[in-house]
Amino acid sequence: MVRKSTHHILTFETSSDTDIIDITGEVLDRVGESGCRDGLVTLFVPGSTGALTTIEYERGVINDLRRAIERMASRNLEYEHDRRWGDGNGYSHVRAALMGPSLSIPLLSGKLTLGTWQQIVLLDFDNRPRQRKVILQIMGAGRIPMEP
Amino acid sequence: MVRKSTHHILTFETSSDTDIIDITGEVLDRVGESGCRDGLVTLFVPGSTGALTTIEYERGVINDLRRAIERMASRNLEYEHDRRWGDGNGYSHVRAALMGPSLSIPLLSGKLTLGTWQQIVLLDFDNRPRQRKVILQIMGAGRIPMEP
Amino acid sequence: MVRKSTHHILTFETSSDTDIIDITGEVLDRVGESGCRDGLVTLFVPGSTGALTTIEYERGVINDLRRAIERMASRNLEYEHDRRWGDGNGYSHVRAALMGPSLSIPLLSGKLTLGTWQQIVLLDFDNRPRQRKVILQIMGAGRIPMEP
Repeated sequence: MVRKSTHHILTFETSSDTDIIDITGEVLDRVGESGCRDGLVTLFVPGSTGALTTIEYERGVINDLRRAIERMASRNLEYEHDRRWGDGNGYSHVRAALMGPSLSIPLLSGKLTLGTWQQIVLLDFDNRPRQRKVILQIMGAGRIPMEP
Repeated sequence: MVRKSTHHILTFETSSDTDIIDITGEVLDRVGESGCRDGLVTLFVPGSTGALTTIEYERGVINDLRRAIERMASRNLEYEHDRRWGDGNGYSHVRAALMGPSLSIPLLSGKLTLGTWQQIVLLDFDNRPRQRKVILQIMGAGRIPMEP
Repeated sequence: MVRKSTHHILTFETSSDTDIIDITGEVLDRVGESGCRDGLVTLFVPGSTGALTTIEYERGVINDLRRAIERMASRNLEYEHDRRWGDGNGYSHVRAALMGPSLSIPLLSGKLTLGTWQQIVLLDFDNRPRQRKVILQIMGAGRIPMEP
């Protein structure tokens, strides 16, 4: 048997309304522990009010991103979702659908191929604090030894 | 020989102008039939006027998403693509490029890692009904048995 | 030993401010050379001011996409990133985070599953010319022969 894949379920406590969290450290730790040197790292956020992307994790540009998202799907518009269900988080769903829930990053020679100023961020758009999960999957690649 | 991957070409009939279809059921059926328990599910829409994302498939928020996309790339703007080619679907191409054609979802213990209210949707932005394909690829992970 | 994965680091010279480059030819060449017939092709752009998507690579619609991105995160707004760091490329970071750095495309029977008019594009949002890398990873799938 040759283990060629592993996964982790990462957990984060988020605050309400476009919390943007740097999860790079957790991802790098788990990738390092996996012993996998070459492969594909997939990140996925279960739930319909969260998203994943990469950005330079610097407070100024994180606020700039928040403002851009507010322009795209403002909290102050009327949402049909809210009229039907009363959750008040129609804007959260729309933002999450626009940004997308998945991210794929090749792993080469034991290093994630992120740029120097590029961090992995979890965006939580919900209108209340959440305990948010991120699935981290590491699929090994490279040569498969035929003998264990 | 060990089968470690399988794919399906799903087909959907779409109507014109931002048809948003819940394709979760079809995806779950094929993943179930594959017998694969752990791995990576990749979805990809061939064509330059379609996209994929996830959202809670509820009529209100689907309409809210449509409105947000209309704000991002309104059908009523002038598009250089239309002046050059006369297709009238310049807005469709722009929307598809902004939303993106691919989605990656880990499969763990036989279950796609979607949230409870999170469905997979195909967005067709074209200005005429289409027969639209989605490529579903299931790459097995987990342990590879050395004996068949 | 069975080679089940390969990668390439593609390099592109970009010009400043939303350069959009068709990289499909390079990707197809490397996939062809890999000899891989079935699998998953992952593309990833290291760096926090670049992105990847697909679009019909036609000058009109490329300009239309540029205009849509300018509406989403205009160069003429004030960015907190610029006030703090003076780089003048706050808009570049925001655009890259909104568009996303990764793309996943299944490879079936030796062919990438792109549509006829669908090209892979690298978007460089930075405010100066760059030498930009794109990671191309090809993970083989299909049957794994047990004998070399």
